[in-house]
Amino acid sequence: MFFPGKITICEVGPRDGFQNEKGVISLEDKIFCINQATESGYQVIEIGSFVHPKAVPQMSDTDEIAKHIKRKDDVQYRALVTNLRGIERAASCGVNKVKLTVSASESHNMTNFNKKPYETINDFQACVELADKYNMSVSGAISTAFGCPFEGPISLDRIAELVESFMRIGIHEISLSDTTGVANPKQVYERSQILTNRYSNIKWFLHFHNTRGMALANVVAGMSAGITHYDAAFAGLGGCPYAPGASGNLSSEDLVHMLHEMGIETGVNLDQAIKLGAYVKKMVNHDTDSYILVAGKVSDLVKEKPIGQINNNSSS
Amino acid sequence: MFFPGKITICEVGPRDGFQNEKGVISLEDKIFCINQATESGYQVIEIGSFVHPKAVPQMSDTDEIAKHIKRKDDVQYRALVTNLRGIERAASCGVNKVKLTVSASESHNMTNFNKKPYETINDFQACVELADKYNMSVSGAISTAFGCPFEGPISLDRIAELVESFMRIGIHEISLSDTTGVANPKQVYERSQILTNRYSNIKWFLHFHNTRGMALANVVAGMSAGITHYDAAFAGLGGCPYAPGASGNLSSEDLVHMLHEMGIETGVNLDQAIKLGAYVKKMVNHDTDSYILVAGKVSDLVKEKPIGQINNNSSS
Repeated sequence: MFFPGKITICEVGPRDGFQNEKGVISLEDKIFCINQATESGYQVIEIGSFVHPKAVPQMSDTDEIAKHIKRKDDVQYRALVTNLRGIERAASCGVNKVKLTVSASESHNMTNFNKKPYETINDFQACVELADKYNMSVSGAISTAFGCPFEGPISLDRIAELVESFMRIGIHEISLSDTTGVANPKQVYERSQILTNRYSNIKWFLHFHNTRGMALANVVAGMSAGITHYDAAFAGLGGCPYAPGASGNLSSEDLVHMLHEMGIETGVNLDQAIKLGAYVKKMVNHDTDSYILVAGKVSDLVKEKPIGQINNNSSS
Repeated sequence: MFFPGKITICEVGPRDGFQNEKGVISLEDKIFCINQATESGYQVIEIGSFVHPKAVPQMSDTDEIAKHIKRKDDVQYRALVTNLRGIERAASCGVNKVKLTVSASESHNMTNFNKKPYETINDFQACVELADKYNMSVSGAISTAFGCPFEGPISLDRIAELVESFMRIGIHEISLSDTTGVANPKQVYERSQILTNRYSNIKWFLHFHNTRGMALANVVAGMSAGITHYDAAFAGLGGCPYAPGASGNLSSEDLVHMLHEMGIETGVNLDQAIKLGAYVKKMVNHDTDSYILVAGKVSDLVKEKPIGQINNNSSS
């Protein structure tokens, strides 16, 4: 197995986490969480999306967020856009990195765009050209890249076709999203190996949901194939429309904790990340899928006095 | 990365799961769950422990369990013992596989046995000799093998010393237990690689707790190093004395599900394993750490009709 020395994490909680919350999160709280994510050392933060407010009302204040967050020069503040209007909005509030998402699943993509996936990407060309004018960097994302709830498995050929479509319109940073938490480590390893070898000039992100508990295992598989950029959300926010009550995004603090235990650098201050996760969990006021917020760090254990005896007969 | 074609799972729920329950589980329920585990296809089942009933009252009926479960010839029914009295009890109720556990942590082991770990193993020799007389097979287990809550990291040298002590008394099947959920995938991979290469005539089991969410990732790391036997507990029962409310053992159904998704055989019928996990979860009447019991199998997804539209802008 191969383990890289450094991993970059994109904190997607402000977008993929908050948009799944039923309760309203105030603009002030969103700004506070993004500022704390910056302070924690995340190098990429997905702050929201510039889509129609009727489609995703939870994200309607992304313009205000972008205007009021306290930025650091070496941090990328990314937002999701779907059309030219989104690029204009992003430009007007100083967002300099946007993400264009297509679904690898034809039926999933037809539902949203009434187009085949590669047609959607072709139509993104105008967005890329407009973004260029604003000196905005553009990334692509392929959702349901490891399987679709309607269609089942998504072939590698389909992914390759979409990657090449993205490359044709000038996009060289691509996220592969496991939208509904169906990816497994063998699939992630094999797919990542083939894609990174075949398209070596692409900067890859992997985005896992922990719906079936496999997210950290999938990160290990992705790292072993050489991929060094991963999305995660504070407190493990997010959900899955196909599994009510199921877990959402991989928790940022669980990911940072595992990587640091493995001796892999992230640039993130784990204690600050845990503090942010705990704040978010309290704010949303419901259980979330974050182990570290419950169990604490491995490195905390040895500092504590034992709570009673460990009975060797009762613990293994 | 290396992925084996077949993995053997030991269902430890009846021992490491039930002994952590505060509520009383009836003898009938225990027998039912073990019989269901047999029917589900687990090839090793840890049915309880023969220790002093005052030390672990939840396990005081292991003799009765052993007498009344419905056995299959190709299934190993394993019980934990600590001394000659345990071997006698195991023999008297027809248990033909026992496990002797030592802690890799000196302070942990001193607490339980008032002896250094290797001294404890030396004292196990009499147990091995008595077990031989009864034609009983004996395995060893090393708890806190990846780290100790008192001492922190446990050196590989310490583990090697204990492995060699076990070998000297004739034990060639050894479980490495991550008792408090501190192992990480890099450590598991590196330690497993060294140990399997150095002691190639040992049959290794790995026993992970999901306290910090890393258990499945650790299994992937262990498999990649060639280890093919893993413990897990139905519904993810169990806990951690150092992290109140934290998760316990890796859930059997999550493990079987991941392995099957990876195309790795287990011999376990996943649907029956899920049914058993759901029964156990209902019986203990509290939340447990099992993803599949909440989210369902990946393979169930494509059979279902979509619940509403997936909004591409709101899911990645």
